[in-house]
Amino acid sequence: MTARVQSVLNEVEYIVGYKTYIELIRPFLTHQEVVATGMRQEIDRCREAIRLAGEGHRVAVVSSGDAGVYGMAGIIIECMEQAGLLDLPLEIIPGVTAASAAASMLGAPLMHDFAVISLSDLLTPWEVIEKRVRLAAEADFIFAIYNPKSQGRTQHIETVREILLQYRRPDTPVGLVREALRGDESSVLITNLNEFTNYPIDMLTTVIVGNSQTRIVGPYMVTPRGYKL
Amino acid sequence: MTARVQSVLNEVEYIVGYKTYIELIRPFLTHQEVVATGMRQEIDRCREAIRLAGEGHRVAVVSSGDAGVYGMAGIIIECMEQAGLLDLPLEIIPGVTAASAAASMLGAPLMHDFAVISLSDLLTPWEVIEKRVRLAAEADFIFAIYNPKSQGRTQHIETVREILLQYRRPDTPVGLVREALRGDESSVLITNLNEFTNYPIDMLTTVIVGNSQTRIVGPYMVTPRGYKL
Repeated sequence: MTARVQSVLNEVEYIVGYKTYIELIRPFLTHQEVVATGMRQEIDRCREAIRLAGEGHRVAVVSSGDAGVYGMAGIIIECMEQAGLLDLPLEIIPGVTAASAAASMLGAPLMHDFAVISLSDLLTPWEVIEKRVRLAAEADFIFAIYNPKSQGRTQHIETVREILLQYRRPDTPVGLVREALRGDESSVLITNLNEFTNYPIDMLTTVIVGNSQTRIVGPYMVTPRGYKL
Repeated sequence: MTARVQSVLNEVEYIVGYKTYIELIRPFLTHQEVVATGMRQEIDRCREAIRLAGEGHRVAVVSSGDAGVYGMAGIIIECMEQAGLLDLPLEIIPGVTAASAAASMLGAPLMHDFAVISLSDLLTPWEVIEKRVRLAAEADFIFAIYNPKSQGRTQHIETVREILLQYRRPDTPVGLVREALRGDESSVLITNLNEFTNYPIDMLTTVIVGNSQTRIVGPYMVTPRGYKL
């Protein structure tokens, strides 16, 4: 959490968010009125926040990681547009996205060019995602994979593995980080491209796949930037 | 700056870093001894930090944005390996990388899959970079471009524009953010793929190029996540 988020949380009257994320910031709340809603109610949350802001209240909408990466920032602006309220004052406060949080627990896997890809096909056709995976694999991007697996989608990550194996060695390092930086809830594992899908992966896992240069250095996964030591 | 960085800065005895970044955190320093070095002295900084840590001191190495994205995290680990000191305790604290900071000032351009690419060819052959640009353009990734231009490299960003124009409309939104979130130093401009290289771009600029779905919404640049409003 950034210093800016802490000060804004103190200034607002209302906090709107998915109930799981509200619980994460509960220790920081004092006077604020909380509007917590369930999963997949993103549009409802935005409309309620905009209604309150339209009445002149100061409102914070919370999002996990960085609100600007697959987060609430976009849908808020789209709902403001639909409501004809694009002139409402809006501050988007960036955060530490899951790729950065997971990388910090693995060592330094993101020292070179990387692609951030979500495997969720709720809002994106799988063909689009698969094409991106194939081209990014060919381009030797490091991968930061969000939403790698859910109960309804268990095969996508296997397909990603098969595509990557066409371009990268089976022993390419892969890091699995679950609930990155959420204290005791966090778990970290470094494995490789051939084996990583044998380990538990769910929607709270971030998968980092190394590029052709990534290597294991002691307990760390490191992609060299290219310095001559 | 995250709360974790603030508390670690308070706990350490030494702070090692590039002098420009040391100046940015100067207001937060009290008792710490500062070791500031010049540009391109990354390896010297790491060796000095490791020497001090090896003597039992608590040392913070500062990096701008996120130390884990083209930052100091990797070279620190590589220098620890070279010194045979991989067992030194190391905490990598993630931060807000330039892609996130720039996106927050533009609206919500990173709501979908994106590629982070540095155009600096100091440590990477230009052919590798150009291939990545071409494949990421074909894959319809949003682009977050770091180090887009320096005094010695003014043509790379023009080449990137030409490649992207083979895959995307000339009116694709492009955001230019200089010194993102550095207070009065920051500047923001939203333009398009055809015209963006007519504006000032330097090493402190982050360039965000939209994908085929990105649009201008009032004063914002937004890539829709795909919600039906």
